[in-house]
Amino acid sequence: MSKFWSPLVKKLTPYVPGEQPKMANLVKLNTNENPFGPSPKVVEAITAELNDNLRLYPDPEGEALKSTIARYYNVQSEQVFLGNGSDEVLAHIFYGLFQHGQPILYPDITYSFYPVYCSLYNIEGKTLPLTESFEINPEDYRQPNGGVIFPNPNAPTGRYLALDKVEAIVAANPDRVVVVDEAYVDFGGESAIKLVGKYPNLLVSQTLSKARSLAGLRVGFAVGSAELIEALNRVKNSFNSYPLDRLALAGAIAAFEDEDWFRATCEGVIGERDWVTAKLEALGFEVLPSKANFIFARHPDHAGEVLAKGLREQGVIVRHFNKPRISEFLRITTGTADQNKRLIECLKALV
Amino acid sequence: MSKFWSPLVKKLTPYVPGEQPKMANLVKLNTNENPFGPSPKVVEAITAELNDNLRLYPDPEGEALKSTIARYYNVQSEQVFLGNGSDEVLAHIFYGLFQHGQPILYPDITYSFYPVYCSLYNIEGKTLPLTESFEINPEDYRQPNGGVIFPNPNAPTGRYLALDKVEAIVAANPDRVVVVDEAYVDFGGESAIKLVGKYPNLLVSQTLSKARSLAGLRVGFAVGSAELIEALNRVKNSFNSYPLDRLALAGAIAAFEDEDWFRATCEGVIGERDWVTAKLEALGFEVLPSKANFIFARHPDHAGEVLAKGLREQGVIVRHFNKPRISEFLRITTGTADQNKRLIECLKALV
Repeated sequence: MSKFWSPLVKKLTPYVPGEQPKMANLVKLNTNENPFGPSPKVVEAITAELNDNLRLYPDPEGEALKSTIARYYNVQSEQVFLGNGSDEVLAHIFYGLFQHGQPILYPDITYSFYPVYCSLYNIEGKTLPLTESFEINPEDYRQPNGGVIFPNPNAPTGRYLALDKVEAIVAANPDRVVVVDEAYVDFGGESAIKLVGKYPNLLVSQTLSKARSLAGLRVGFAVGSAELIEALNRVKNSFNSYPLDRLALAGAIAAFEDEDWFRATCEGVIGERDWVTAKLEALGFEVLPSKANFIFARHPDHAGEVLAKGLREQGVIVRHFNKPRISEFLRITTGTADQNKRLIECLKALV
Repeated sequence: MSKFWSPLVKKLTPYVPGEQPKMANLVKLNTNENPFGPSPKVVEAITAELNDNLRLYPDPEGEALKSTIARYYNVQSEQVFLGNGSDEVLAHIFYGLFQHGQPILYPDITYSFYPVYCSLYNIEGKTLPLTESFEINPEDYRQPNGGVIFPNPNAPTGRYLALDKVEAIVAANPDRVVVVDEAYVDFGGESAIKLVGKYPNLLVSQTLSKARSLAGLRVGFAVGSAELIEALNRVKNSFNSYPLDRLALAGAIAAFEDEDWFRATCEGVIGERDWVTAKLEALGFEVLPSKANFIFARHPDHAGEVLAKGLREQGVIVRHFNKPRISEFLRITTGTADQNKRLIECLKALV
């Protein structure tokens, strides 16, 4: 602590992202990156922007990318908000679209950045326990609140909530914004974006870091009613006018335009995820049903921490959360076929 | 307004960046971009990063860029903070390094994002009038405050405050953080970074958008004592873990490594700025002495608004602020030799 810090900073407990080790030859299955690269058209589009125009500011509104996303999801451009990764989008949501006098509801086991945003903006968060089988129960979200947020599929569980149940939560909170954080939706889920026309209180956030394989480019977005988006624009324009650089804007547009690549790589990930699931089950693991690009699994006879350490000693990194209810689990990103085979081989030596 | 907006949003008055018109053949002298492109080595370095690794998150700490900047300024890596443009860096400073119970001091005529940050974080701002000749008077900054910030050179005036006067302000406020916003310092000023070892309360922010010609890439940074930087890291890691993408990190490193390009282009801008200044004075303009890549000028017989409009009709865009004390001025970015000639020709038709 320092006398120069604002009182706000002294209270912060920052988010800890998954490790980004700098060693080579690692099987890195800890941060839910896509095992496939981005579309070659993304690289082409960025190359076309790599010129003296870098001296110029990007379009602060990112209109071309907004239009592309709007067309893709059959909404209007003014229903799309862009940010520097979905984490920035979520931060602005916590600031601008939640009522700060009442608790924000989210699951007890979920994306661990939510409580950090609450702390950043001095908002109360209220965690609602997932069921025994780690599912969200929509009935729990019928109580006074300042806003609701949950990932779908949830992280780190990977469990997907069917769209009718998502809709039940949105419909039960007509005076509050309900945010569905769909970072992983393209690996088998159905997006709630199709419901935004029906519910002015529904906001859906997504990222290009996962299914579109652009974690390195930092692009996220949200889709909702124009009145929700306007609040986010006001916050963004009071914080940083140009969060997306010229190259990120160009690459993101190209990513949405190459639907074939998108579909093929998503199917590839799903196929590998199901292969890993079957192999883990054969080794005695309990694997939660996943619609994400990772799986959440525990072994009845081996502690999660010990397994994570044993894997690391063999050059395979997965994520382990030392937290109540889930400390026995490993969160394992779906890798390439070779990486997944190595994971299973390494686990065989441990269980 | 909408019932879904948080009370905070309802009070915001967002920053309005200089227009980014999409018309071709415009002489765009309104957003202080560099007339020269970035170093060719920047383009090379980004090209080398344009591959499947875009699927991976960037280094959240940006260690390689921090080390590069630290070496360049002869400080330690932990004295460097990185952000998505200096606007994001400034936002985190307002959140984390100013004491929110007392007023933040800044000049009455200055970067118009400062009051926006105050409004974003509900902090009181107190403006201190520049002198008649639009200079900062260090004596004014000897009064109770929660922090001090000013650009050097100041914007939109372009006036530079000599380093001994900057030091006087820093020394007069040992218990408060003094931020020197050096977006334009490389066009003839001297950086206060050389003083950070002496003053733990001094923080210097810079950007790669101006002298390093990378407005399109979104990279800014701050240099100060490690205890100040730690506060900024805590805020950043409670907001967005990865604000700089892989390409921006690579390009920024290359920009610092090509010192010859940097010096040559800065000298080119300074030469053009001085040429424009002389021509404007010959046309009867009063031009404030500038150490930035723009000049601030008024004509005794012609209103600023009328001149800006007349220039626009001829395809030349400059910035005009309809604000007290400066409504007669134009802020004119230094362009290429051809652009500057056209500016002068167009003005000749108006005065």
